[in-house]
Amino acid sequence: MEAKTPEQSKTIMTDMVLPGETNPLNNLFGGELLARMDRAASISARRHSRRIVVTASVNHVAFNRAVPLGSVVSVEAKVSRAFKTSMEVFIDVWIEDRESGAKTKANEAIYTFVAVDETGKPVEVPEITPETQLEKERYDAALRRKQLSLVLAGKMRPNEATELKALFK
Amino acid sequence: MEAKTPEQSKTIMTDMVLPGETNPLNNLFGGELLARMDRAASISARRHSRRIVVTASVNHVAFNRAVPLGSVVSVEAKVSRAFKTSMEVFIDVWIEDRESGAKTKANEAIYTFVAVDETGKPVEVPEITPETQLEKERYDAALRRKQLSLVLAGKMRPNEATELKALFK
Amino acid sequence: MEAKTPEQSKTIMTDMVLPGETNPLNNLFGGELLARMDRAASISARRHSRRIVVTASVNHVAFNRAVPLGSVVSVEAKVSRAFKTSMEVFIDVWIEDRESGAKTKANEAIYTFVAVDETGKPVEVPEITPETQLEKERYDAALRRKQLSLVLAGKMRPNEATELKALFK
Amino acid sequence: MEAKTPEQSKTIMTDMVLPGETNPLNNLFGGELLARMDRAASISARRHSRRIVVTASVNHVAFNRAVPLGSVVSVEAKVSRAFKTSMEVFIDVWIEDRESGAKTKANEAIYTFVAVDETGKPVEVPEITPETQLEKERYDAALRRKQLSLVLAGKMRPNEATELKALFK
Amino acid sequence: MEAKTPEQSKTIMTDMVLPGETNPLNNLFGGELLARMDRAASISARRHSRRIVVTASVNHVAFNRAVPLGSVVSVEAKVSRAFKTSMEVFIDVWIEDRESGAKTKANEAIYTFVAVDETGKPVEVPEITPETQLEKERYDAALRRKQLSLVLAGKMRPNEATELKALFK
Amino acid sequence: MEAKTPEQSKTIMTDMVLPGETNPLNNLFGGELLARMDRAASISARRHSRRIVVTASVNHVAFNRAVPLGSVVSVEAKVSRAFKTSMEVFIDVWIEDRESGAKTKANEAIYTFVAVDETGKPVEVPEITPETQLEKERYDAALRRKQLSLVLAGKMRPNEATELKALFK
Repeated sequence: MEAKTPEQSKTIMTDMVLPGETNPLNNLFGGELLARMDRAASISARRHSRRIVVTASVNHVAFNRAVPLGSVVSVEAKVSRAFKTSMEVFIDVWIEDRESGAKTKANEAIYTFVAVDETGKPVEVPEITPETQLEKERYDAALRRKQLSLVLAGKMRPNEATELKALFK
Repeated sequence: MEAKTPEQSKTIMTDMVLPGETNPLNNLFGGELLARMDRAASISARRHSRRIVVTASVNHVAFNRAVPLGSVVSVEAKVSRAFKTSMEVFIDVWIEDRESGAKTKANEAIYTFVAVDETGKPVEVPEITPETQLEKERYDAALRRKQLSLVLAGKMRPNEATELKALFK
Repeated sequence: MEAKTPEQSKTIMTDMVLPGETNPLNNLFGGELLARMDRAASISARRHSRRIVVTASVNHVAFNRAVPLGSVVSVEAKVSRAFKTSMEVFIDVWIEDRESGAKTKANEAIYTFVAVDETGKPVEVPEITPETQLEKERYDAALRRKQLSLVLAGKMRPNEATELKALFK
Repeated sequence: MEAKTPEQSKTIMTDMVLPGETNPLNNLFGGELLARMDRAASISARRHSRRIVVTASVNHVAFNRAVPLGSVVSVEAKVSRAFKTSMEVFIDVWIEDRESGAKTKANEAIYTFVAVDETGKPVEVPEITPETQLEKERYDAALRRKQLSLVLAGKMRPNEATELKALFK
Repeated sequence: MEAKTPEQSKTIMTDMVLPGETNPLNNLFGGELLARMDRAASISARRHSRRIVVTASVNHVAFNRAVPLGSVVSVEAKVSRAFKTSMEVFIDVWIEDRESGAKTKANEAIYTFVAVDETGKPVEVPEITPETQLEKERYDAALRRKQLSLVLAGKMRPNEATELKALFK
Repeated sequence: MEAKTPEQSKTIMTDMVLPGETNPLNNLFGGELLARMDRAASISARRHSRRIVVTASVNHVAFNRAVPLGSVVSVEAKVSRAFKTSMEVFIDVWIEDRESGAKTKANEAIYTFVAVDETGKPVEVPEITPETQLEKERYDAALRRKQLSLVLAGKMRPNEATELKALFK
């Protein structure tokens, strides 16, 4: 399988915030945003692998800024790193100011997907070659996140987590 | 106000088709697609005008191809022509094949929006300068569609509809 | 097949506007109204044809009046003209004043449906015989609209569109 | 206030059953039907009283027949009896056979609404004069139901419930 | 089959009231509450019978208190009495005060379910042994409600309804 | 403020999986589960703090087992540790077998909430005293997770993260 770039899996879901999608403070309901990110990220993983994909984990979602009713919200997802059968997808959420057109970062999130065949068995996915500076940073950090998640799950011994150990020396 | 290009109002809404959005034939429910196009198109009109916009009419929607459950659907909207206070938005809907990644045109639609101020009074919008060949064709056709809609509504005398008369000479 | 009347396909969908169905201006969200009209109109086409029907196009929707939160809205659909395998459905949308009970026209729309068999192949539908003055006007106009749509799609030469040519003479 | 007839409050909500409204057996989800009946019945009570109305109770709903995915369902509501500030609404639910057009009764239900002013205080509603045989039977039974509900709630002594006592003599 | 206790079927569904679930008065929409109760009650009946269950009727729902937007609502369902193949489920709805944590009763409802096998044929369910004082009262009242519903449906002669006759002596 | 126990914030949301909440593989759609967990967890944080709470982050969600259509799903949330103004909430998701009644763990997740006053300013929350063995383990791990998140965000120097350093020695 030929390596791909993050750009090839880029997925944009631009949408509004209607009253039926808000919380009692009149901002986008957190659960609705989590669902939109899941949809966009899974399309991104599918574009990278051209396989059926299933959500394996949500590794990190930071809600930095509330998204008010009536906002235009862009959820942008790109595969940040491919492992053997899994893919880490990085999601950036932007709000757009109506008058100036300026975009502000509202949230970011990291989801992991596994590619499977029709019987649900994991299958290999193409490698990924990051291109931009940001893509390279996210690619590198993805390995540390993976080691960390293996260590926390007791599936890797801390002293084998070479990427992480460096951090805590 | 400075003229803008259709590209500046381009809005992409890529999403999946889940079971709760289908009709009894297991295809995307027509009403759900009409709603997604309305959301994407109104964002496009808002990006062009940087104003509050309200849907004035749906001029034409052709359902050429059913969109099956599980599809990845991209709704792409761009302002095709700006009139004094209104904007015609052209929407293309694409389905993506999971295995090959090939995109197929499923539907297209034309919606019209009016820009309004906070009191609901129509306000002027920037002109538009089409760039590509397709944008130019849609820009020209938009005038014929507008005359047609005025004639059919009894607000323009057929012999004043110069663009249309040419067609039926 | 025996001809039917528009009254035989009359479909009434009276419902409220709840907060989860509004836009940020607290009016019925346009996409939700498009969906309700699609549901009512397809029932009307099904009642005329007693067949499975699929939406072929939305030909014209005019949003003349916003429908505020809490309104009682009646969507009324009737087949306006039957062609060989397709049916044009005319939809009137009324809002009802709570105190006086008076009904005001809010919108109207025209959808086209095709009757199909279980394999999706178009099948013939009964003819229609308009009865009231309004039904007759809509029946006549339906032919002009059909010719127009064929001309615009390049499937009919303008000089063959006899009904339309009359308009632009 | 002038008395009205049940016909004047008649409310018809004809709609389809889409996959997003079903239960795991592929029939209309009971909760969705309860919600549709609540919407139709409250419009009926509002038409009778021309007031804001609030649901006071659901007195009886019999689910006699499942409503399969893809059905056309008509919810028909009429005020069956008006008391001082409350109204009993009788709801009949019909399914329509696509091929024959025959309508079958699927369910019926009885809801009670109270008319209130803007401050939420109950206000008087017009009397009702049943016209058809069925309307008269439901009008009479409504009084027995009301007495019964008062007896069961401990707000009426059984021996005062003259309509009911007759039944159990 | 061994008898069970109401506690064994206890089902708790605690949830919030978001804007998309309200009526125009900003309270939980009645239809949404009816749906939540149907979901919780059917789980309760399923826990008692360990069978597929279908809603047979909604016997009584009293809306005593509006549930405002933003509330925490607990729907608590327990089987109150088991008959041969049917189960009466009693549902209590509580609202919780954010500051004091105090719970207030908002509504109560009674639903009846029938246990069925895979072909839809009713099957027997275990008996129930009420334990608390409230469970015993509801257990006793359930028989009166059942007789009443049989009498009103014309399936039992009033003078056979021994439990009810006592009330009206 | 008096310390509380995790049990005092325990929140149970038992519900079914209906077709409108599934993905194309007929399992509970991941985004819907994320939304249910957000609702349950925020109620738990609100019960601990008796304050308005806003989701700050989703730290970890592991999707170990698909949740099939028709399942009974219990989302159980408890505050696992309280910091100055924030609370970590641990969520366990269980599926229940209809025939045996056995419960199986399907997923777990960790969300963080911040308590705020009416102006959105963070306010202090009560301390928490874990009671069971599992509550104690989660309480201890919460500190490591917090340090980790601070280190990864560049807000704490790795050598100050005493709890974490121990892991990588």
